[in-house]
Amino acid sequence: MKLASYLISGKPGYGVMHEEGIIDLYAHFGSKYPDLKSMISNPDVLALAKEYKADPVIPFNSITFLPVIPNPNKILCVGMNYKEKRKEFSATENAPTLFTRFSDSQIGHLQNVIKPAYTKEFDYEGELAVIIGKPCYRVKAAEAYQYIAGYSCYMDGSARDWQYEWFTAGKNWLNTGAFGPYLTTVDEVPELEDLSIQTILNGQRVQHDFLGNMVYKVPNIIEYISTFTPLAPGDVIITGSPGGVGKKRNPPLFLQPGDKIEVIIDKIGHLTNTIANE
Amino acid sequence: MKLASYLISGKPGYGVMHEEGIIDLYAHFGSKYPDLKSMISNPDVLALAKEYKADPVIPFNSITFLPVIPNPNKILCVGMNYKEKRKEFSATENAPTLFTRFSDSQIGHLQNVIKPAYTKEFDYEGELAVIIGKPCYRVKAAEAYQYIAGYSCYMDGSARDWQYEWFTAGKNWLNTGAFGPYLTTVDEVPELEDLSIQTILNGQRVQHDFLGNMVYKVPNIIEYISTFTPLAPGDVIITGSPGGVGKKRNPPLFLQPGDKIEVIIDKIGHLTNTIANE
Repeated sequence: MKLASYLISGKPGYGVMHEEGIIDLYAHFGSKYPDLKSMISNPDVLALAKEYKADPVIPFNSITFLPVIPNPNKILCVGMNYKEKRKEFSATENAPTLFTRFSDSQIGHLQNVIKPAYTKEFDYEGELAVIIGKPCYRVKAAEAYQYIAGYSCYMDGSARDWQYEWFTAGKNWLNTGAFGPYLTTVDEVPELEDLSIQTILNGQRVQHDFLGNMVYKVPNIIEYISTFTPLAPGDVIITGSPGGVGKKRNPPLFLQPGDKIEVIIDKIGHLTNTIANE
Repeated sequence: MKLASYLISGKPGYGVMHEEGIIDLYAHFGSKYPDLKSMISNPDVLALAKEYKADPVIPFNSITFLPVIPNPNKILCVGMNYKEKRKEFSATENAPTLFTRFSDSQIGHLQNVIKPAYTKEFDYEGELAVIIGKPCYRVKAAEAYQYIAGYSCYMDGSARDWQYEWFTAGKNWLNTGAFGPYLTTVDEVPELEDLSIQTILNGQRVQHDFLGNMVYKVPNIIEYISTFTPLAPGDVIITGSPGGVGKKRNPPLFLQPGDKIEVIIDKIGHLTNTIANE
């Protein structure tokens, strides 16, 4: 199942993606589960959702995609997690390096990603996003998959000239973290290792790798993070970006207004955004 | 005015500190402002609160202090912000270095700060906390003070052996960030520069400096942060710690169960906690 959050006539909703449009689940579950974060916390509701597959669809052109989870309580971001990326940045840490995003830094599929007026080095990073489905604290890697609701694509727009060592200031500008189009539930993605991840800038592939080349694998990341902080339904972990970012190219390649940026992960999704000035 | 958040008979409340106890404001304003974060967003309520100064007080021994703001939307933490601390850590960045805390990493005055079972290097950092009172985005330093609701003390308990470069994993363990005892409103603290900040471990002073020795001053920090992310009432900025942390002593001095740790800032507060094992 592919679950999306959106606005329709200015009001928030969520539903199941179909080829022609979205089946509204908010109409059925909204009074009890006001957002996708709360809905995915109940796996019974996910099963129940399948019963509405004959409902009429809302055409895509009448909705505005929101970030898959518009309001995560925690967004943790793993840095330097592909071998090629580590080479580019001369990374030496022997543990997952983590920074955080605030939820208001996010933006949905097909919306404008905003290049901050204060940066001259606005860069792309295509990433796999993991969405937590059950409360978890100090889980072992071997049990970690059962706490995952699903996956999505993330374009971790980064102001490199504000990033410095600790990343917070480079990664938290409004509308710079594109997240979507939807959550693909974990049952549809049996194995991550062989899936390709690519970032396409104006039709040209600028990042390409396989999820199996992550230095720290998804279950290990969940074990590591949940050792120090509890995770809850709707929390998001973005798992790092392959090599090929604009900052480390010669000459550098930064995002400009009008650019089209896409993140494509096999079986998981195809996220498309356009860059705009503030 | 000194405003505290607390539990009484298991229920959350907030009120004004007096010598003998606390005057309950939640009883008067709780239906409209369910927590201190929402109450301080309305400066009229702050003025109105003074009218209840003849109310009976709740004795301190019948309350449990919560973190001053138990549920900030954003907690931003400035690292390497005193000259001595920068020397200790050989800091070279030419901008405020920022990490974040999740709100569930906090704990109130007089409560146990929990030494994580997974760290052998649990360290103290006494800091000034700034609590935002009005929404602010891209404010200039010269106007920044008007967005501050008040100040408090923070003991930024840090697992050094999990901290690495990006700090998230060292700074977000449950019940490691002591925040209190209360918010001292900005009208009671006309000038920060000459105020002394000290950290006392088992009666011995281990950190001592003056707020005037911050490399980045409070209004400049607010300008810097609000350039990239909007701030809202109840958001917290902790402003860095003076030199003298345990990790950089010879021999190192780490927190152990039973230790008493205090952070004292002139005119602002005196925060006391005891260290306990998980």
